[in-house]
Amino acid sequence: MGSYCHRRYVSKLFQNFGKLQPKAKGDRRANDIGLSCKSHSLMLYNDIIAPGHAGGFHLLPLGLRAMEKLVKLVDREMHNIGGQKVSMTTLAPEALWQKSGRWAAAGSELFTLKDRHQHRFCVSPTHEELFTTLVAALSHLSYRQLPIRLYQITRKFRDERAPKYGLLRGREFEMKDMYTFDTCEETALETYNAVCEAYDRIFSRVGIQFVKVSGDTGLIGGDKSHEYHYLANIGQDTILWCERCGVQMNKELAADDSILPSACQMSAEKCELQQKKAIEIAHAFYLGDKYSKVFKASYRDSAGDKQINCSMGCYGIGMTRMLQAAIECLSTDTQLRWPSCFAPYQICIIPKKDGHRGEEFLKAAELISDSLSKLPNLEGEVVIDDRMNLTIGRRQVDSDRLGFPYIVILGNQALESEPKFEVIDTAKQETVFMGPDQLHDFASQMETITIY
Amino acid sequence: MGSYCHRRYVSKLFQNFGKLQPKAKGDRRANDIGLSCKSHSLMLYNDIIAPGHAGGFHLLPLGLRAMEKLVKLVDREMHNIGGQKVSMTTLAPEALWQKSGRWAAAGSELFTLKDRHQHRFCVSPTHEELFTTLVAALSHLSYRQLPIRLYQITRKFRDERAPKYGLLRGREFEMKDMYTFDTCEETALETYNAVCEAYDRIFSRVGIQFVKVSGDTGLIGGDKSHEYHYLANIGQDTILWCERCGVQMNKELAADDSILPSACQMSAEKCELQQKKAIEIAHAFYLGDKYSKVFKASYRDSAGDKQINCSMGCYGIGMTRMLQAAIECLSTDTQLRWPSCFAPYQICIIPKKDGHRGEEFLKAAELISDSLSKLPNLEGEVVIDDRMNLTIGRRQVDSDRLGFPYIVILGNQALESEPKFEVIDTAKQETVFMGPDQLHDFASQMETITIY
Repeated sequence: MGSYCHRRYVSKLFQNFGKLQPKAKGDRRANDIGLSCKSHSLMLYNDIIAPGHAGGFHLLPLGLRAMEKLVKLVDREMHNIGGQKVSMTTLAPEALWQKSGRWAAAGSELFTLKDRHQHRFCVSPTHEELFTTLVAALSHLSYRQLPIRLYQITRKFRDERAPKYGLLRGREFEMKDMYTFDTCEETALETYNAVCEAYDRIFSRVGIQFVKVSGDTGLIGGDKSHEYHYLANIGQDTILWCERCGVQMNKELAADDSILPSACQMSAEKCELQQKKAIEIAHAFYLGDKYSKVFKASYRDSAGDKQINCSMGCYGIGMTRMLQAAIECLSTDTQLRWPSCFAPYQICIIPKKDGHRGEEFLKAAELISDSLSKLPNLEGEVVIDDRMNLTIGRRQVDSDRLGFPYIVILGNQALESEPKFEVIDTAKQETVFMGPDQLHDFASQMETITIY
Repeated sequence: MGSYCHRRYVSKLFQNFGKLQPKAKGDRRANDIGLSCKSHSLMLYNDIIAPGHAGGFHLLPLGLRAMEKLVKLVDREMHNIGGQKVSMTTLAPEALWQKSGRWAAAGSELFTLKDRHQHRFCVSPTHEELFTTLVAALSHLSYRQLPIRLYQITRKFRDERAPKYGLLRGREFEMKDMYTFDTCEETALETYNAVCEAYDRIFSRVGIQFVKVSGDTGLIGGDKSHEYHYLANIGQDTILWCERCGVQMNKELAADDSILPSACQMSAEKCELQQKKAIEIAHAFYLGDKYSKVFKASYRDSAGDKQINCSMGCYGIGMTRMLQAAIECLSTDTQLRWPSCFAPYQICIIPKKDGHRGEEFLKAAELISDSLSKLPNLEGEVVIDDRMNLTIGRRQVDSDRLGFPYIVILGNQALESEPKFEVIDTAKQETVFMGPDQLHDFASQMETITIY
């Protein structure tokens, strides 16, 4: 693209356009009746999201920047395990969902519509049918060409009976869904492990403590379903966790409470099974030939004389849910905090308030912004709080509330012959004074994901 | 993200998984009854897209790579004019569309559905109602904060009566739609010009001859609607074009043919009005207060005592349509050609076929790929055709057909003490022999858009 440097000013950011406006009625009501939670409120209040319909939210500029960074992080890890990205249609013909038996099974959770020719479609919540059909159409597929690992990051739709907690349980959401095709169970489990390792890297990079637990098939033999959770009191799931024997599982696996003690592999008196509330962010699922059999997604074996059904897996990450859950885990009641890798902007520079040297402070801020933005890891990542009618203190409160990982304050010392800036790490609430070179070195070490 | 280098092999690309498979029945039929065209056929045959439903197509890995590059190009230009990117819900409540009068007006082109509570929504084809509502909710908006320029690049839905020509006239499509809010007509026209200049830069960068014509309001005074077209025989629009007086307009503006001569500002005998078929790719539209009045999107004036309706504009680019239209313009009947800025990959390296030195050729290809991929403009842009059981010639035919802008062939000279590679520019069909340093310099000059 050639060099690309463009100053960004806080006064021009969308979330400062209408400050202090009362929030939409619908959401005051959501708060009243307990459908809202800390992260939901913080995201509404700070204009990260805006309400569209019950369970549907617009991602505003800061929210979308965070989402696009998370998308880039996931893209790279999916690509590293040979994932190829596609984008499937949103509408899926009824016939395919009838064939898999899911049209009836999904019931009222499925949004459906008829086109002008009275053909019925669902507005897809997931895409097993379409991906399996796509691979089934590769009629000359050979065992040599497997595994096939395809994924997409697209909007999904589910007519939730009780939408709640903003993006955590919505009716429109962004999801990464990967579908894999292997020769047999053994190779499918290699794929399974590769995807889980990619998930581990993604979650480690985000840096919030996560729990990986056995899912659905855990108790009925095999090790073929796993869920990734963030711990949070508002979570819909309950995790069973024994620190002694190491067992971690979703409580929903236990049909009744009598199964709980047997989940722990220690004798009852030594077991320290705890229950923790958690938000499911991702899952991995070995599907076997459940779909490949129905849709005839098969390959020629090495002898070339037989068609064998592919062994499939599916792997989801709730992208919008992960975004909000991370905020739920990191924020205080009044201060929004982002994982630094997907904070919308990395640095906010606040030059001293208007006065006889106001313009000099602003100019200094612009020069620092230009210089930092030339670092490859900070391209587009620096904003200047140019609301020069406000005190440093007032603007610092705003920046802190919005959760820029770093705030750089230009006070009187910034214009001295050996300038010093106040650099605040908002997560740690620590302040260090730095000169220009030191700031430059410090900033060049920041691990960011840049977008536009 | 840190350094990121990963070799890419043609044998692992999706479009080589099932070669020679018969295409889906539905699309053979499309061809028979004239619903298909050159670009549509080429994209299906080369697995750039796959059929989902009538008018709905999956973007396969190469198609999505091209799309994501186009998205990045558009993002940067929108950002350069102060555009802030958002992502609105896909479902829009009926009430908002009733309010604007478009629920009835859109008629059977609108996909609609009911949720489990019997509330009706449309699956949005455009978002005037939602954007205007969003800005109307900024109740403390001041004249100082305008212009507001918001855009999104998302999937849109339209129940076309006669879907045709693949992505050119589909029922699901990706669209960039920007909505702008200004204080008055004068400032709104500044915005209008800024967006048109950004469009000019985007179209110039893509490099295909485009025509910018007056749209709807051209004949009724003012200069407030423009369309951008690519010339193509399969286009749905007809452009009137006089090379003498310079007039360019959409023929649909002329209610009947008698208006044609008067469209040209020359006297009839000097006028050389031509008619050309064209595909509309983008439009710019000044909306005035049509929507802001209805939804009360207003700002406080400088005296602070009046609420004034914003002057709006809307600006669309048909992203999937542009992708295919570009291919339609550049390709031959058998060879797919991309604008180089959004070709899925920039370079394909073909090492000599297996033989006693087969492994040496492959290794040489990998070293060249590693070295070129370290160039910032070629990160992720080099693929190696590792199908070592095929001759160079056969693989060259494939590469040429798929339209990699450059093919690098490693023949015998590649392993000599002063190695030489055959570098083919597929668009120009020119071949040059280069040594490693020369290739490196040549490659470092390529203007690309990199993604993952």
